[in-house]
Amino acid sequence: MTQWGFYLQTMRERTPLVQNITNYVSMNVMANIMLAAGASPAMVHAEEEAAEFAGFTQALTINIGTLSNPWVSAMLAAASVASEKGTPWVLDPVAGGATAFRRNACAELLALRPTVIKGNASEVLALAGVAASAKGVDAADDVANAEESAKALAASTGAVVAVTGAQDFVTDGSTSYRVKNGDAMMPLVTALGCSLGGVIAAFCVGSKPLEATVAAIAYYGLAGEIAAAKSAGPGSFAAAFVDALHEIDAVRLSADARIETA
Amino acid sequence: MTQWGFYLQTMRERTPLVQNITNYVSMNVMANIMLAAGASPAMVHAEEEAAEFAGFTQALTINIGTLSNPWVSAMLAAASVASEKGTPWVLDPVAGGATAFRRNACAELLALRPTVIKGNASEVLALAGVAASAKGVDAADDVANAEESAKALAASTGAVVAVTGAQDFVTDGSTSYRVKNGDAMMPLVTALGCSLGGVIAAFCVGSKPLEATVAAIAYYGLAGEIAAAKSAGPGSFAAAFVDALHEIDAVRLSADARIETA
Amino acid sequence: MTQWGFYLQTMRERTPLVQNITNYVSMNVMANIMLAAGASPAMVHAEEEAAEFAGFTQALTINIGTLSNPWVSAMLAAASVASEKGTPWVLDPVAGGATAFRRNACAELLALRPTVIKGNASEVLALAGVAASAKGVDAADDVANAEESAKALAASTGAVVAVTGAQDFVTDGSTSYRVKNGDAMMPLVTALGCSLGGVIAAFCVGSKPLEATVAAIAYYGLAGEIAAAKSAGPGSFAAAFVDALHEIDAVRLSADARIETA
Repeated sequence: MTQWGFYLQTMRERTPLVQNITNYVSMNVMANIMLAAGASPAMVHAEEEAAEFAGFTQALTINIGTLSNPWVSAMLAAASVASEKGTPWVLDPVAGGATAFRRNACAELLALRPTVIKGNASEVLALAGVAASAKGVDAADDVANAEESAKALAASTGAVVAVTGAQDFVTDGSTSYRVKNGDAMMPLVTALGCSLGGVIAAFCVGSKPLEATVAAIAYYGLAGEIAAAKSAGPGSFAAAFVDALHEIDAVRLSADARIETA
Repeated sequence: MTQWGFYLQTMRERTPLVQNITNYVSMNVMANIMLAAGASPAMVHAEEEAAEFAGFTQALTINIGTLSNPWVSAMLAAASVASEKGTPWVLDPVAGGATAFRRNACAELLALRPTVIKGNASEVLALAGVAASAKGVDAADDVANAEESAKALAASTGAVVAVTGAQDFVTDGSTSYRVKNGDAMMPLVTALGCSLGGVIAAFCVGSKPLEATVAAIAYYGLAGEIAAAKSAGPGSFAAAFVDALHEIDAVRLSADARIETA
Repeated sequence: MTQWGFYLQTMRERTPLVQNITNYVSMNVMANIMLAAGASPAMVHAEEEAAEFAGFTQALTINIGTLSNPWVSAMLAAASVASEKGTPWVLDPVAGGATAFRRNACAELLALRPTVIKGNASEVLALAGVAASAKGVDAADDVANAEESAKALAASTGAVVAVTGAQDFVTDGSTSYRVKNGDAMMPLVTALGCSLGGVIAAFCVGSKPLEATVAAIAYYGLAGEIAAAKSAGPGSFAAAFVDALHEIDAVRLSADARIETA
């Protein structure tokens, strides 16, 4: 039996510096979540410095939530550096199929070989070239419908692909897992999905991307379960969720992770 | 007697997709508040895609809190699309009288016929061309002093005009309401006013703008009353407020809305 | 014995309008913290209006956390106005030594004579031209190691220099203080350091910068102590911290400030 808590413990021992090029909506929450988890986040996205910073960060996340042309330039520059140096980087293609601008940005970023791609079902279907029913930034498609596309996307890009939803699916194209941790309150708090990208990136530093991603998602979902038991609505849930990320240790994660091979 | 809860129920049944071009300070809070209320917010503001997205959103909010030239371009493009398609859109002229840049942006946006204009007394006075005593983003004028200007602004623009404050005033130029729900803690939490714009937009989808706006403001104020009873200061209030938005249902709103014709 | 609460009371009586040019991560938190403290924050950073607004604000903060070229222009323009008018302004050189872009921006801003410079040890060492071990935005150096550099920086620039950390050090080059209030949970909440810059700026309106800065830092640390006693992790701490800022009054601050001359 895999000791999934090992990946959490490893991450905390490293306190990895993670550069995040993310959207305006998630920046604050993402930083707080990564600090609570035990990582060292840095929100460095300007064209003037993103590539330089990517030269010494230990991991990188790129989230296209509120992209614009200067940001796409910074994303491409930073991802190129990460790709060249072998630094793990996570792509979060938020609403990736919604507009032509997003579809183009995703295509350029995919070519720079992300280590992990994390999206909801609609986003993964869009990246895989399948017509998806995306409506805004929320998933309109089920995870189950995206599993085959996720495998194909992993096989064609070399990335680990994580499809998040009520039950998460993670695959490298050959080996796949389902993560059953989580709570229905999570989609009611904005930027929790985005922030997960940063936690995955932190877990990937020095660990195998597939298992690190699975462990990060289980850890995240477990925090959601703990928070739900202590909160009265999405506002108090958000605070309790950060508390829970800070509280969960490796032993707890190993005990309560609900992960199955798929 | 009007069943004000009907407007909340209608909004929740539609889960309207609402595009928000808002300021950096409010983005996260606004998304959380709209999710808690039952809407589907999308923060899409880039010049490169704002107009395209406006073509399929169900409502739009434009908030000038932290504007800059590229954002003004996106605002004008998105508002033009909304205006042409008859999509309801809400203008929030934050600190609209404070600088020449803001006054010009407001004039251009007003010409695109917002469905609802929501501001504090100083902002509505500034929009109406009356010299107001705005200091920063807070209202320095009383709602009562802005009522006649609000009516005149509604008559000249065709918009519903909502003046927010200790007691709110909403008018379409001929029919007017006062909303007495609310709590003194609300102005101590930043971006609650901005986020109300998004909730109003969501309520307007498929409902008459005047009554939808009144219902949204009463719902918001009622959430403030419930949160105040459960919190120890502005920090815990902010979380309890989001909880209350999620908890209030149509029956509760109909029972506890304190609305009078003016 | 200094009645440190006097500075809090003075600030609240003035409700100073403070213009903040700060990073995306901190904007919302900073506004909430300043409102809870009793100030009137305005997040006005656009090139198109920053200098105009600086002409009538009562204090200004400049935080380079997520800088880019247009923002640096706005920072320089606003700081020039503040410097000419004698308006107190606070420089927060976030990760100031991390990239060439940041080092250049800091050098240009320093030349505009900030009233107060507030940074962690790594940032103050970098500003003082000492090779520091900055890693991302967190301090990797001890406050004690930066004390002599802080004095030299104060002497050469005419600014009050505050070095924040487990124990804070504040100096104008000749007189120095150590502030012992604070809690270990504070670095786990992002943007608390940035937001302190705004609180210091508010305290400086009409008060002597050295003592005003010391009082602001003690007030902040005391709020951290109160919040820690009421919270279960960094999520609930963040809300309790804002509550505590709102709750602390002048009597409490005078009684519980732990300040020593150094």
